[in-house]
Amino acid sequence: VKIGIVGGTGRIGEGMAMRLSRIHDVLIGSRDEEKARCTCEICLKEASERGIPCRVTWVSNQEAVDGSEVIILAIPYKHLDATMSVLHGFEGKIVISPINPMEKKEFFIYVPPAEGSAALYLRTLLPGSARLCVAFNNIAGNRWRDIDKELEYSVAVCGDDAESKQIVMDMIDQISLMKSYDAGPLSISPAIEGLTPLLNNIGKCNRMKDVGVKFV
Amino acid sequence: VKIGIVGGTGRIGEGMAMRLSRIHDVLIGSRDEEKARCTCEICLKEASERGIPCRVTWVSNQEAVDGSEVIILAIPYKHLDATMSVLHGFEGKIVISPINPMEKKEFFIYVPPAEGSAALYLRTLLPGSARLCVAFNNIAGNRWRDIDKELEYSVAVCGDDAESKQIVMDMIDQISLMKSYDAGPLSISPAIEGLTPLLNNIGKCNRMKDVGVKFV
Repeated sequence: VKIGIVGGTGRIGEGMAMRLSRIHDVLIGSRDEEKARCTCEICLKEASERGIPCRVTWVSNQEAVDGSEVIILAIPYKHLDATMSVLHGFEGKIVISPINPMEKKEFFIYVPPAEGSAALYLRTLLPGSARLCVAFNNIAGNRWRDIDKELEYSVAVCGDDAESKQIVMDMIDQISLMKSYDAGPLSISPAIEGLTPLLNNIGKCNRMKDVGVKFV
Repeated sequence: VKIGIVGGTGRIGEGMAMRLSRIHDVLIGSRDEEKARCTCEICLKEASERGIPCRVTWVSNQEAVDGSEVIILAIPYKHLDATMSVLHGFEGKIVISPINPMEKKEFFIYVPPAEGSAALYLRTLLPGSARLCVAFNNIAGNRWRDIDKELEYSVAVCGDDAESKQIVMDMIDQISLMKSYDAGPLSISPAIEGLTPLLNNIGKCNRMKDVGVKFV
């Protein structure tokens, strides 16, 4: 699968690129192509040190959309509007949202937009033919980036298009020890996004780092 | 600890009574004392067959409140108002809410009251001196009841009173292989309650039964 990462130079995007480029062609997109080039070089260097394959290319965010079948929006919620306002060409593409709208005051709280979730809002910004799935919400950026460690997590996936959901789930099951779980239609996305602040609070209260989840 | 289970004859209440009565004195409360007596006899029989201790007594729901230091409200959300309207005497007591307000249409969705969660609503029904904690929300009733199986789950706990939260967490850590995690104040309770419909949807979509959770 050709995968484009919009926001591919952030902590999560970089880790995703490193993990996914072992199997897939990955386009690392950024507003700043120089940053994307640096991320590519880091990926290639770390992969070559370990003797693992790495197929990455640096591009603009728009090229990441244009050149991919699956697009991961690895951006914080606060940048969603600005990012989407300058991108186009999502028609027919699979779009993955790992975005969690939350605030940190004393504790983390889930603060979704009026549509009910970041994903339900994002749907209003995408053309009707885009196939939106929610995935990867509950995995900490540091864990993605720590590429010598296995990612032994459950990944809840939701979306309204069965075929694209299956493609995303197959993609997930190829990454480290991740296991995907279909969690239903896009309407249940608040539950997946809202799990992240809970995990963050558990981390904070119990002095644990980067808490993840397994469904058992 | 003296534990009273309001609604102790339901599937979850019965399983809780069986597990907790190995260590604690448990008052099994019910609107129908005859049902509470039956549940007690089942608990005692199953415990004696296995040679494990069992300290249970059947009582009314009001006596379960009056005679206990910790009260578990093992009732469905739809019965919360009716149950609380006939009970009193919660002053100074530790109250545990495992209640999840949700609806099942095609999928399970979290439907909290205007206060934000069942627990935040329950707080308005309790005297100010009651010490409310949220716990046990994400463990399926069948798992509680299947007493020959270990319960290897994580249990998120929230509440505003540190001392009572610690008592509840210690109680949890004594049950089977459960592990408690402090998840913060009562204001984060929507995230704990809202995890249950997600687990139910994962069960439904992946043909799994009684899906639970571990924080890793």
